[in-house]
Amino acid sequence: MSRPVAIVGIGLTRFGERWESSLRNLITEAGLAALQDCKVSGEEIDELYVGSMSPGQFTNQELVAPLVLDSAGLADTHIPTTRVEGAGASGGLALRQAYLSIASGHADVAIAGGVEKMTDVPEKDVTRILGAASDQEWEAFIGATDPALHALIARRHMEKYGTSREQLGLVAVKNHKHGSLNPNAQFQKEVSLETVLQSPLISDPLRVFDTAPASDGAAAVVLAALDVAESYTDRPIRVSGSGQGSDYVSLAARQTLTSFAATKHAAERAFAQAKAQPKDVDVVEIHDSYTINEILGIEDLGFCKPGAGGVLTETGATAIGGDLPVNPSGGLKARGHPIGATGIAQVAELVSQLRGQAGSRQVRGAKRGLALNTGGTGVVSVVHILEAV
Amino acid sequence: MSRPVAIVGIGLTRFGERWESSLRNLITEAGLAALQDCKVSGEEIDELYVGSMSPGQFTNQELVAPLVLDSAGLADTHIPTTRVEGAGASGGLALRQAYLSIASGHADVAIAGGVEKMTDVPEKDVTRILGAASDQEWEAFIGATDPALHALIARRHMEKYGTSREQLGLVAVKNHKHGSLNPNAQFQKEVSLETVLQSPLISDPLRVFDTAPASDGAAAVVLAALDVAESYTDRPIRVSGSGQGSDYVSLAARQTLTSFAATKHAAERAFAQAKAQPKDVDVVEIHDSYTINEILGIEDLGFCKPGAGGVLTETGATAIGGDLPVNPSGGLKARGHPIGATGIAQVAELVSQLRGQAGSRQVRGAKRGLALNTGGTGVVSVVHILEAV
Repeated sequence: MSRPVAIVGIGLTRFGERWESSLRNLITEAGLAALQDCKVSGEEIDELYVGSMSPGQFTNQELVAPLVLDSAGLADTHIPTTRVEGAGASGGLALRQAYLSIASGHADVAIAGGVEKMTDVPEKDVTRILGAASDQEWEAFIGATDPALHALIARRHMEKYGTSREQLGLVAVKNHKHGSLNPNAQFQKEVSLETVLQSPLISDPLRVFDTAPASDGAAAVVLAALDVAESYTDRPIRVSGSGQGSDYVSLAARQTLTSFAATKHAAERAFAQAKAQPKDVDVVEIHDSYTINEILGIEDLGFCKPGAGGVLTETGATAIGGDLPVNPSGGLKARGHPIGATGIAQVAELVSQLRGQAGSRQVRGAKRGLALNTGGTGVVSVVHILEAV
Repeated sequence: MSRPVAIVGIGLTRFGERWESSLRNLITEAGLAALQDCKVSGEEIDELYVGSMSPGQFTNQELVAPLVLDSAGLADTHIPTTRVEGAGASGGLALRQAYLSIASGHADVAIAGGVEKMTDVPEKDVTRILGAASDQEWEAFIGATDPALHALIARRHMEKYGTSREQLGLVAVKNHKHGSLNPNAQFQKEVSLETVLQSPLISDPLRVFDTAPASDGAAAVVLAALDVAESYTDRPIRVSGSGQGSDYVSLAARQTLTSFAATKHAAERAFAQAKAQPKDVDVVEIHDSYTINEILGIEDLGFCKPGAGGVLTETGATAIGGDLPVNPSGGLKARGHPIGATGIAQVAELVSQLRGQAGSRQVRGAKRGLALNTGGTGVVSVVHILEAV
């Protein structure tokens, strides 16, 4: 039923405070870069999907998907353009819809982009807008911010499993080290564990260096049916699994705080489709919007036992050179987190790794990669598994 | 390649100022009504799509798709939930993604909902938020509001084709008459042409009664593969065509103001897929966010020659009882226009008509219906063709 699909082109902007670039500029830059990365001409694209969390609240611009087509000079194609939203998972959802459009035989070539322009609003508005991913009536109404909700998760994980404050901090230290090797990263600078542990407290136990920054940026990937992919690139990267799951929006309704059921369901579907297991994965990108989320991700994806994510981090296994390199791009923490762009940027990093083009942050011999993109407090999760053909 | 798909259940809330109901309440009410309308249990749903234009700006709630699943008591299914956005076309896009998920064989049963909660913000904010569907840098920045942009279109149509102010007004008169027969409509009251023509001027030549109201409301439809549809309903309604098109976002970039290329492309695809022509259609729902848009829709869909839509309206052909009944539901003008809900509500109306359950507004002998849902100034258009099985 399902036709094999490959990623044939990737494009990224530099992430960070991009005051010189508008929402339109950013996504157009990424989209055109993705097209230049392969031999697909704009007229060959059958469908366009864009993931963006809150372009309306950040810039008052909705209808972002046709805007991208327009700005890329491709409006005359009049192709279907659709924006998808799942808060932090918006990019991953866009990729999945583009993937499905080809897997189903409906399209031969599709483009999936992601973008967010976050730094044109005051900082207090950023916190409020991020809070739109929580339950307005049951969480935001009583004053629970996005960091506060993640602090509850972190505290419970520490209580239940003995995860230490230092282990959380080591996630940030590792990802900053990786980010220092990534020329597109927002923070290309190493930090010490001491710096993380002495950074300002945001919501106990989480500190500034436990959180991803607000960023401007965009990313795009071009997908094609595998049977035509070789006409567009020498190194097609197959999407061998695509899974998506969801959960209760408010934390209070769930059975546990220390595991995201949405991630488990998404991973189960993606692994089954890819006919693979966690041990078969060589490189991973995980949605570390907070340090605790990387630890939960490692566990929920099945890379270690529940509760063992902190210890695994401490051993160095998740660093480049370790057994399970996680976030070689620098992750959300160091690469930056323009919300809608993140899910696409994760997959673009995997493509670079599987092509063997990741330069000084290359994971040696990487043949299979996995990306986990989540929205809200694990409310929506998307898992993609990629393989070198 | 493409598996036949049917709509097996529909659900609608009353549209209007629903101050007693939150965003969550509205979409849950519609979703549960759609499930009650057929024999699908919540656990049988494979995918959920929700269309909503600006829940963030109207209510600060993003992540609306998982919220619906959660509120309906179905979070334990952990199924994929995705919000899609295309301004006024958001509902139609949600339907199309749900349709594609089944047509591709990826899902057997899917639900598509649409919702907007517009009346909790001050009126001036409604105008600004609607303006998020225009190009922020090239239109909104210079002060062009959504009504102003549509006024330009109307004025040009009048100049080019001789469409009269009265013909525009007759669209509203007809739709209010139809709405008076719809118990879910926001305005269940007839209006005279004089009332329309003497209503306050908004943007010359458009007056208050040329525009759809701001509304709260939601709609949902349950879709299933045709081969299993008969186990869920006695009267499956087949989705025989689904087309989507796009255009330049700003009016200034287009070759003409008097025709929406996005609609033409969407219609061409939908008609080709349905192996049908305009003359085969018995009942139509058109996105009359402004009266001029119904006239453009009639023309772009091929129901008459370019420029002849005003005259066709004047003859009464587009009223219930005429040759081509348009908007028997009352349209956006009288049924109301909770933005994301509109595209789904249009299709729910067609299902009622094709089932022969439309009561006093029934179009006799209707076998094939068409819905046109548009976003922005015809930036995104979605056309669905439905047929009684």
